[in-house]
Amino acid sequence: MNKSFDLLALGEVLLRLSPPSNERLVRGETLQKQVGGAELNVVSGVSLLGLRTGIISKLPANDIGTYAKNRIRFCGVSDDYLVYDDSHDARLGVYYYENGAYPRKPGIVYDRMYTSINKIAVSDFEEELFASTRCFHTSGITLALSSQCRKTAVEMMKRFKEAGALISFDVNFRGNLWTGNEARECIEEILPYVDIFFCSEDTARLTFLKEGNAKSIMKSFTETYPISIVASTQRIVHSPKVHTFGSVIYDARKDTFYEEEPYRNIEVVDRIGSGDAYVSGVLYGLLSKPDDCQRALEIGNATSAVKNTIPGDLPSSDLREIETVIKAHKTVGPQLEMER
Amino acid sequence: MNKSFDLLALGEVLLRLSPPSNERLVRGETLQKQVGGAELNVVSGVSLLGLRTGIISKLPANDIGTYAKNRIRFCGVSDDYLVYDDSHDARLGVYYYENGAYPRKPGIVYDRMYTSINKIAVSDFEEELFASTRCFHTSGITLALSSQCRKTAVEMMKRFKEAGALISFDVNFRGNLWTGNEARECIEEILPYVDIFFCSEDTARLTFLKEGNAKSIMKSFTETYPISIVASTQRIVHSPKVHTFGSVIYDARKDTFYEEEPYRNIEVVDRIGSGDAYVSGVLYGLLSKPDDCQRALEIGNATSAVKNTIPGDLPSSDLREIETVIKAHKTVGPQLEMER
Amino acid sequence: MNKSFDLLALGEVLLRLSPPSNERLVRGETLQKQVGGAELNVVSGVSLLGLRTGIISKLPANDIGTYAKNRIRFCGVSDDYLVYDDSHDARLGVYYYENGAYPRKPGIVYDRMYTSINKIAVSDFEEELFASTRCFHTSGITLALSSQCRKTAVEMMKRFKEAGALISFDVNFRGNLWTGNEARECIEEILPYVDIFFCSEDTARLTFLKEGNAKSIMKSFTETYPISIVASTQRIVHSPKVHTFGSVIYDARKDTFYEEEPYRNIEVVDRIGSGDAYVSGVLYGLLSKPDDCQRALEIGNATSAVKNTIPGDLPSSDLREIETVIKAHKTVGPQLEMER
Amino acid sequence: MNKSFDLLALGEVLLRLSPPSNERLVRGETLQKQVGGAELNVVSGVSLLGLRTGIISKLPANDIGTYAKNRIRFCGVSDDYLVYDDSHDARLGVYYYENGAYPRKPGIVYDRMYTSINKIAVSDFEEELFASTRCFHTSGITLALSSQCRKTAVEMMKRFKEAGALISFDVNFRGNLWTGNEARECIEEILPYVDIFFCSEDTARLTFLKEGNAKSIMKSFTETYPISIVASTQRIVHSPKVHTFGSVIYDARKDTFYEEEPYRNIEVVDRIGSGDAYVSGVLYGLLSKPDDCQRALEIGNATSAVKNTIPGDLPSSDLREIETVIKAHKTVGPQLEMER
Amino acid sequence: MNKSFDLLALGEVLLRLSPPSNERLVRGETLQKQVGGAELNVVSGVSLLGLRTGIISKLPANDIGTYAKNRIRFCGVSDDYLVYDDSHDARLGVYYYENGAYPRKPGIVYDRMYTSINKIAVSDFEEELFASTRCFHTSGITLALSSQCRKTAVEMMKRFKEAGALISFDVNFRGNLWTGNEARECIEEILPYVDIFFCSEDTARLTFLKEGNAKSIMKSFTETYPISIVASTQRIVHSPKVHTFGSVIYDARKDTFYEEEPYRNIEVVDRIGSGDAYVSGVLYGLLSKPDDCQRALEIGNATSAVKNTIPGDLPSSDLREIETVIKAHKTVGPQLEMER
Amino acid sequence: MNKSFDLLALGEVLLRLSPPSNERLVRGETLQKQVGGAELNVVSGVSLLGLRTGIISKLPANDIGTYAKNRIRFCGVSDDYLVYDDSHDARLGVYYYENGAYPRKPGIVYDRMYTSINKIAVSDFEEELFASTRCFHTSGITLALSSQCRKTAVEMMKRFKEAGALISFDVNFRGNLWTGNEARECIEEILPYVDIFFCSEDTARLTFLKEGNAKSIMKSFTETYPISIVASTQRIVHSPKVHTFGSVIYDARKDTFYEEEPYRNIEVVDRIGSGDAYVSGVLYGLLSKPDDCQRALEIGNATSAVKNTIPGDLPSSDLREIETVIKAHKTVGPQLEMER
Repeated sequence: MNKSFDLLALGEVLLRLSPPSNERLVRGETLQKQVGGAELNVVSGVSLLGLRTGIISKLPANDIGTYAKNRIRFCGVSDDYLVYDDSHDARLGVYYYENGAYPRKPGIVYDRMYTSINKIAVSDFEEELFASTRCFHTSGITLALSSQCRKTAVEMMKRFKEAGALISFDVNFRGNLWTGNEARECIEEILPYVDIFFCSEDTARLTFLKEGNAKSIMKSFTETYPISIVASTQRIVHSPKVHTFGSVIYDARKDTFYEEEPYRNIEVVDRIGSGDAYVSGVLYGLLSKPDDCQRALEIGNATSAVKNTIPGDLPSSDLREIETVIKAHKTVGPQLEMER
Repeated sequence: MNKSFDLLALGEVLLRLSPPSNERLVRGETLQKQVGGAELNVVSGVSLLGLRTGIISKLPANDIGTYAKNRIRFCGVSDDYLVYDDSHDARLGVYYYENGAYPRKPGIVYDRMYTSINKIAVSDFEEELFASTRCFHTSGITLALSSQCRKTAVEMMKRFKEAGALISFDVNFRGNLWTGNEARECIEEILPYVDIFFCSEDTARLTFLKEGNAKSIMKSFTETYPISIVASTQRIVHSPKVHTFGSVIYDARKDTFYEEEPYRNIEVVDRIGSGDAYVSGVLYGLLSKPDDCQRALEIGNATSAVKNTIPGDLPSSDLREIETVIKAHKTVGPQLEMER
Repeated sequence: MNKSFDLLALGEVLLRLSPPSNERLVRGETLQKQVGGAELNVVSGVSLLGLRTGIISKLPANDIGTYAKNRIRFCGVSDDYLVYDDSHDARLGVYYYENGAYPRKPGIVYDRMYTSINKIAVSDFEEELFASTRCFHTSGITLALSSQCRKTAVEMMKRFKEAGALISFDVNFRGNLWTGNEARECIEEILPYVDIFFCSEDTARLTFLKEGNAKSIMKSFTETYPISIVASTQRIVHSPKVHTFGSVIYDARKDTFYEEEPYRNIEVVDRIGSGDAYVSGVLYGLLSKPDDCQRALEIGNATSAVKNTIPGDLPSSDLREIETVIKAHKTVGPQLEMER
Repeated sequence: MNKSFDLLALGEVLLRLSPPSNERLVRGETLQKQVGGAELNVVSGVSLLGLRTGIISKLPANDIGTYAKNRIRFCGVSDDYLVYDDSHDARLGVYYYENGAYPRKPGIVYDRMYTSINKIAVSDFEEELFASTRCFHTSGITLALSSQCRKTAVEMMKRFKEAGALISFDVNFRGNLWTGNEARECIEEILPYVDIFFCSEDTARLTFLKEGNAKSIMKSFTETYPISIVASTQRIVHSPKVHTFGSVIYDARKDTFYEEEPYRNIEVVDRIGSGDAYVSGVLYGLLSKPDDCQRALEIGNATSAVKNTIPGDLPSSDLREIETVIKAHKTVGPQLEMER
Repeated sequence: MNKSFDLLALGEVLLRLSPPSNERLVRGETLQKQVGGAELNVVSGVSLLGLRTGIISKLPANDIGTYAKNRIRFCGVSDDYLVYDDSHDARLGVYYYENGAYPRKPGIVYDRMYTSINKIAVSDFEEELFASTRCFHTSGITLALSSQCRKTAVEMMKRFKEAGALISFDVNFRGNLWTGNEARECIEEILPYVDIFFCSEDTARLTFLKEGNAKSIMKSFTETYPISIVASTQRIVHSPKVHTFGSVIYDARKDTFYEEEPYRNIEVVDRIGSGDAYVSGVLYGLLSKPDDCQRALEIGNATSAVKNTIPGDLPSSDLREIETVIKAHKTVGPQLEMER
Repeated sequence: MNKSFDLLALGEVLLRLSPPSNERLVRGETLQKQVGGAELNVVSGVSLLGLRTGIISKLPANDIGTYAKNRIRFCGVSDDYLVYDDSHDARLGVYYYENGAYPRKPGIVYDRMYTSINKIAVSDFEEELFASTRCFHTSGITLALSSQCRKTAVEMMKRFKEAGALISFDVNFRGNLWTGNEARECIEEILPYVDIFFCSEDTARLTFLKEGNAKSIMKSFTETYPISIVASTQRIVHSPKVHTFGSVIYDARKDTFYEEEPYRNIEVVDRIGSGDAYVSGVLYGLLSKPDDCQRALEIGNATSAVKNTIPGDLPSSDLREIETVIKAHKTVGPQLEMER
C-alpha cells in the first residue's frame, strides 16, 4: 500500500508572538512572529526527521493565514490539506508568550477563541484524504477547542482508522480549555480507536483518576482499550532555565517497558513545544522502524531535549543532529566540544 | 464649573502589529508592537498639546490589556475610565498593518471581532463620569462595532450632553464595519446631540447622499441639525509616500468658512492616525480658544501633516512643535534647516 | 498530458546578505539573510501567482544549504529537484548588496565562484525529470557560471524540448561573468531550442549587435530562430529610489506587438529581482492563458513594478494583489487609498 | 485625612543606556534606552503594586526630559511634581550599563554630574506638596549628589514630617558619590526624622562603624533614633548571573524581627534596581497593612527577587504576580511549570 | 620635509545617539550609537580618501572614551594625539539626533557642556606634535566651546603655522554655542593665520556683516587677510529628504573662481556631517594636488553629496567611489544602473 | 633595537556570521557580522593589553575586504601589512557559527576555501617587514590552509627568526583542514625555529603521539627542539554554557612549571576565540616582562576566561580589566559585586 503521507495531523495553527529574550509582554516594542500549535509541532518534527507529513487545519483567507501557510511549508510540512475561511470573522488564533527566569515563571496569554479552526468540518475535505496517510495524529487540545472541532476530530479518527491508518493521540491536557472531567469523558470515547497513546503520569492520575505506580498505570490503558503503545514523559523543572527530561514507553504487543537515562540539566532556551517534539521523535521512530521501541524512545527524548534549546514552538533538528545528540548522550567520558 | 477633564473619548483600543519598514505581513519574523484606535489617537493628541484627557474603554484583564493601559498612560491620557473584562473570552482587538510604496498600496488585516470593548455598558461606570469633562468625543467606528457599543455610545452622548459637555463626533466611515446606509441611519439619529462634526466631503456625498459643492454640503448639516462646527479634511494621495493635506472648517455660529494653504507633498512615513490627529488639533484649538476657528484649523492641519511623518497610530507633537510647523508653513522664502 | 509541474527552472541559488536600510557593507554589525538567484526568483513568482513550480539546482549539504532549501519551500517552490553536494569544498554562493541613494548607486559584491552549482550534471537527476513539466526556464547567468553549468543547461534544454516542454530563456547579461562576445556565441547556439525569449533592447544592441528600432530588433530574433514570443523590458532609472518600468511583447505567431503605459515613478525599496519578477509574471500569463499576450504583459509589468517595493530578491505578490495593482494602474482619477 | 498620594519620592531620574544582551560598551552600535534612578524605581514598584505615587524631580526642558516624563507615566507614577529646567545647560544624567558574566563583573559608567536635578529647590514647588502624601521617601544618593540636593532633601524631609507624612530613607551608599564619613555625618543628621530605615549590614558596619551581630546592629539604630522600622537586605552574589536574596526587618514598636527563607539561585537577567524593588515591596506592605511586617518582608523579598529576572532598572510586577511568586516560594514539592 | 601626517585636526568628539529610521526621541527603546564631531568628520573623510590623518582631542578615561577611540581607529584616523581625562567629572559630550520628514524638521538635543575637551591644553602634548603634519584644521565650534578650548585652539594654530603647516578653518557657525558678534570678533583674530577658509554665504553676511554678491564677499576675505583659498557651500533644502548641493571656491593666488553644476535632488538619508564631508573632500584635493582647485571642488561636492546618503556623521567613501560619482555627475545621457 | 611592532602575526582573516542569541543557521533572517581568525584574535588581544601589533594577511580588494580592514583597525591592530587581492576570484573566507545549549553543541559551517589568503607570498611584502617586530606569531591553521600558505608561513618564520624576532607558534589543530599525520610532519619541520610553543595535552597525544603525563610531555618538546616556553591549556566543557579553564606553562630556561587555580564554571557567552585570547595574554606577558612566566600565565588564563563571556571571536579586555579579574580570582571571601 503506497500512501502519499506517513503522517497527517489535525490541529489548530496559532500565531505566536513573543518579546525578545527576557523582555515582558506588558512593555516593549517588538514581538517575534512565529507559528506553532501542538499538532503542527508534531508533524513539523517528523518531517524534519525525514518522513512525509501534512497538517489538516483551517486558516483565515488573509495575509496572516498566508504567513502561517508559508511557515508551514518552510518546515517541510505539506499544505495540501489546509482549507481557508474567507468569512467576515475569519481569524487565526494568537498566543503571547514570555520567557521566565527563577523565581518568575513563563507567562502566556491565549487569544484563541472564535478562530477559523472552529469551523472545520469533515465536509471541507475530499474523500481521498483518509486513504492518503499511514498514520493520523491529533491531541486533546483539538477536542477541547469547541464542539465542532471535537466532532470533526472524532469523525476523522474513525475515518482514518477505517482507511487503515494508525491512530496517534496525545492527551495534552490544558486546564484553561476544559475540565479534567470533560477531558476524561471525551477521551474515553475515542480511546477505542487509538493505537499510540501519549499521556503523562500526572495527567493519568488527575484526569483519568488512575492509581498505582507509573508503569502499572501505563499498562492499565492497554488493558481497557486496544492501544498498542503508551508513551509517558517525565519532566523535572528545576527552574525556568533548567529542566531534566526523560520518558517511558510501554509496548503492549510485547508487554515490555523501554527507558533510558534522562537528559539532566538541559539548558532551556524555550520550553514550549518540547512535549510535541517528543511525540514527533517517537512517531518518527515507530513509523520508520515499527518494531524498535527503544530507538523510538531515544529519538523522542533527544528531539525533546534539543527542542528546549531553541526559540519558538517548532523543532529544527534533522536526523543527523538527533543521532549526534543520542550518541553523545550514551557516551561516557570526555567528548568533542564541537566538530571543527 | 471646574471639570477634571477637558476631553473624554469613548472608543476601542487596538493592538497594532506592523512589520518593520517595508517588510510584508506574509513574511518576516518581527512585528512592531504599538497601540492605536481612532478615539485614543484623538485624546492622545489633545493631551500632548496640553489639555487633560481620558479614554473610556474596556480592556481584557490580562498582560495585553495591561500593556495597552501602560501605553495609554505613556501618552499622558488618563486611565481612570478604563474598565476591565476578566471573562474567559476577554480579548483586545488586533490589527496588522504594512506600509505601501507605489504601486503597492498599504495593507491592513483586522482581527477586531469578539473583543472586550463590545461588552462595554454605561453601567460599567460611576455616575460622576458624565460631569467630569468639558467635551466628549466618539466616532462612527464605535457605533459600527456592535449593537452593544452603539447603545452605550448613544446613551453616553446623551448623558454627557445633559451634563453640559460639548459633543464631538467624527464620522470616520469604515466600509468593512458597516454599509453606507447603516451608517447614515445611525448617525442621523445622533446628530441632534452633536456640537462639533467631522465629516469628509467624500463621506458626505457617498454616505449622506449630499450634493452640491463641498462648502454648501458642510453648511447643510448645520441647517438640519444644531451643529456648531463642521470640519472637513481634504487629502490627495499622490502615492503611498507622498500626500497633500488640507481642510475647511465651517462655524455655523458665525456662518463663516476657515481655510489655509494645504501642506503639499508631505513625506509620509505612516499615514495611519493622521485623520485622528487632525481631529485632535481642531478639538485642542476649540477647547483652548473656543472662538478662534482659524487657529483650530491651523493646529489641526499641522498636527495631521506632522503625524504622517512618524511611525504608529499615535501623534507625538507637543504645542511647541506644532507652532514651529505652523510658523514655517506660513513663512515664504528660505528657512532654517534645523535649530542648532 | 498531465505534468506534475507547470514550470521548472535551472539556476544557482545564492545567499544574499544585505545591511539594513541604508547602512553600508564596509561598516555595520548586522546583515539581513535572504536567498535569491535569477531563476529561483522566476519560479518563486510563478508559484505565488498560482502555478506549480520547482527549482533544479545543487546545494551544499550543510546548514547553509538547508537554510536555502527551507526558504525555497517557504516560497511554495518544490525542492524535489534539489541535489546536494557533500564534498569537502561544497559551498553556496554569497552576494552582498547595499541600497543606493542618489548620487550613490547601489553596491554589490559577488562571492559566487567555486560553488556547488558548478558541479551540477544531467546525471544527477532521474530521467523522469524531463517529462515532469510544461515549461523549462533558465537564463544566461547559468550559461556563464562555468563550462560545466553551460553543458548541463544546454543538455537540459534539449532534453526538456524533446519531452515536449516549452523552453523559456532570459539573456540576463552580466558583464562580470562573461564578455558580450562569449555570451552571443553561446546563446546563438541555444536559440534554436527557445520558445519564449526575454532580451532587453540594450542587450540586443550591445551583445547581439542588433541595429534598428526596438520593435524591429525584437522581430528579427523570431525571423532567424523558431522563437514564438520575445519580451523586452524598458526601465528608466531616475534615481536609485525612483524608477519607471514598462515592456513590449512580440508574438511571432500573430505578428503582433503588445504594450501598455509604463509604471511611472515607482517608489523603489529594492530593485534586485524586479527583472526576474517580470519574467515570472509573463510566464505565468503565458502558461495560464497561452493566447493572451496582453494579459501576460500586464501581469509581467505589475509583478515587476510591485517587486521593486519590497526588500529582497524574491517577489511576494499573489494573483489577487497583482490584479488589484493592474486595476488601479488602468483606472483614471481618484482611487481608494487603501481598503478598510 | 484623605491624601492624594500614598507615596512621594525625591530623587534623580537618569537615562540608562545599555548594549543588548552581553555586548560591551566599548563596541557595538545599539543601545537600549530606558530610565531609572533609585527613588523612581521605588515609586514605580509601589505604583505597580497598587498604591498612588509620584516622583519629585527636576528634568531638562528638552526631548530627553520629555522622554523621561513619558516613561514615568508609563509606570503609573504621577508627573505632577516634576519641574523643568529650561536653562542653557539643562541636562538629564546618563548612565551606561553592561551586563557581566563570570569572571567578568557588570560594568557601569556614570555621566551624572552637572545635571538639572542639582538645581532643585523647595521653592520650585507649591506649599500643598507637603500635605499631599502619606509617606515620603528618599535615599542617600539624593543627599550625595550635591549640597543643593542635600539641602532640598533635608528641608523636604522636615516639611513632609511636619505635615504628618511617614519618612522613609534608604542609605544606598555609593562610594563614587561620597565617602563613608561624609555619608555618616550627613545621615546621622537626618535620622531623627526617619520612620522607616533601609540599611544593609555591610553599610551599617563600614559607614556607621557599627559592631556586633546583624540583628543587634539593626536594633541599635532604633535605640539612638526614633526609627520604627529597620529593614536590611542580604544578597549573596554567586556569579553575575546567579544570586541569592533575603532580608530581615526589625519592628521597634513590637521589638520583633521578621525573616523568611531567602530566594536561592535567582536566575539574574539584570540586577540593577533590585534593591530599590525591595524597598518598594516593603513600603507597599507597610503602607497597605501597617501592622503586618511579615507580609511587608515577603512582598519585599519577592519583588526584589523577581526584579532580577527582567531587563532595566524598573520593576514590572503587579500584586497578582508577586502573590503568585510568594505562594510558590512557600510551597514545598512539585509545582505547576506554568498556568495553561 | 617628510611629515608623519597630512592632516591633523583639533576638535570635540561627541557620542551621537539616534533613534532608528523615523522614530522619535521622546519615545522608543533603541538608540543607534555612533561618534561624530565636525573636525573628526573632516579627518575621517580625508583618511578614507587616502591621506594620513589624526585627531587632537581629549576623551574621558572610561569605556565611553574607549569606544570613541575604537571608532576613530575604525575610520583610519590616528589616535596618537588623543589625551585622556581621568578626573572625577570626565565626560564625553552626547548629542541626540532624530531625522525629519516634511513638514517636520530634524531634531537635535545637545548635551555637550562640562565635557573633557574643555580641559584640553597645549601642555597636554609633546612639542613634536606641531612638526608632524602638513596641514592643521579646526572649526568655529572648537573656538565656541569654552575659553579654554579657544585658548588652546588659537595657540595651536600659531604653533602649527610656525612649524610650517597650512592652516585650514571652517567657520561652522552654531547659534546655540555663541552669538554672531562673539564669533566675528574671535574669528577675525585668527584669520591672519588661516590659509584655507571655509565660510558659507549666509554666515559671511550674518556673522561677518559682509555685503555684495557671493563671489565678491569671498574675495573680500582674501583682501583683508592672507588667505589663499576661500570655499563656500550652497545648499538648498527642498525638504528634509531632498537637498541640492553645490559650492564655489576662490583661489586668491590665481584670482580665480571654480564652480560646477550642483548635485540636484540628493536623496538625503542623513544630512549631519555633509558640510564636514565637503571640507574633507576639498582638503584632500588641495593636499594631494595643491594646484588643482577645480578637482578639489569636484571632490568636495561629490563627497558631501554622497555623505547625505548614508547614516551617521562620518563619511564612508573612498577615492574610487568618489571618482565614480564625479564621473556619473559629469555624464550626460543614460548611465549604468549599477555595476554587475 | 627599536622595532615598530611588538608582535606581528600571519593568518587568515575570516568574516564571521552568526544568528543572534540562540537562533539557528537553518532559519532566521538576521546575521551578526564580525571578523575573526586565530592569529587576528591573538594580535587584537595583545594590542588591547597595550603593545603595538599588526596582522599580515591578504584580503580581497572589495567592500568585504575593506570592512575587515576597518574592523582590524577598530581593534588597534595595524593594517600596514595587509595586502589586497584584486583578481577576479578574490574572496574573504566566511564562517557561520551558532551557539549551543546542552544537549545541543555549537554548530559551525566553514566556507574558507579558494580565499585570497591562499595567494599570499613573501614577495607581497617589502624586506623591511622582517626587521619591524620583536615577535612573530602564526598557527597550525595557516600551515594547513594550502601549500602556498604553508610555504609563505615557513619562509616568514625563518626570515623573522633571522631578523632577530622571537617565534611563537600555536598548534591549533583542526581536523577539518588536515590530518594529524600531515600536521605532525609539517610542524616538526618548523619546530626548530619556534621559541614559544602553544600545544594542548590532547593535541600532543593525538597529533604528536606523545605519551606520559602532561608535564613530561610539555618538557619533551623542549628536549627535542630549542623551544624556550611551552604553554598548554586545559578546558573542561561542563556544557556549552559552562566551562572551566586553566593552563600550565613550562619555562625550559629555568626548567620550571607555572600554574594557578583554574577559573571554574565560567558563564560562557561565546567560546570561539578563547584559546586565541589565552595566547594573546601569555604573549603580552612574555613580551612585556620576559622573565615573569607566572604573570604571563595569569594574564593568559584571565584573558581567556573573560573572552568566553563576550560575543564574537575578538577579545575586548584591556589591562585594567584583566588585572581586576586576576585580583578577584585570587581573592578569597566576599567581593564587591561591581564598582559604583
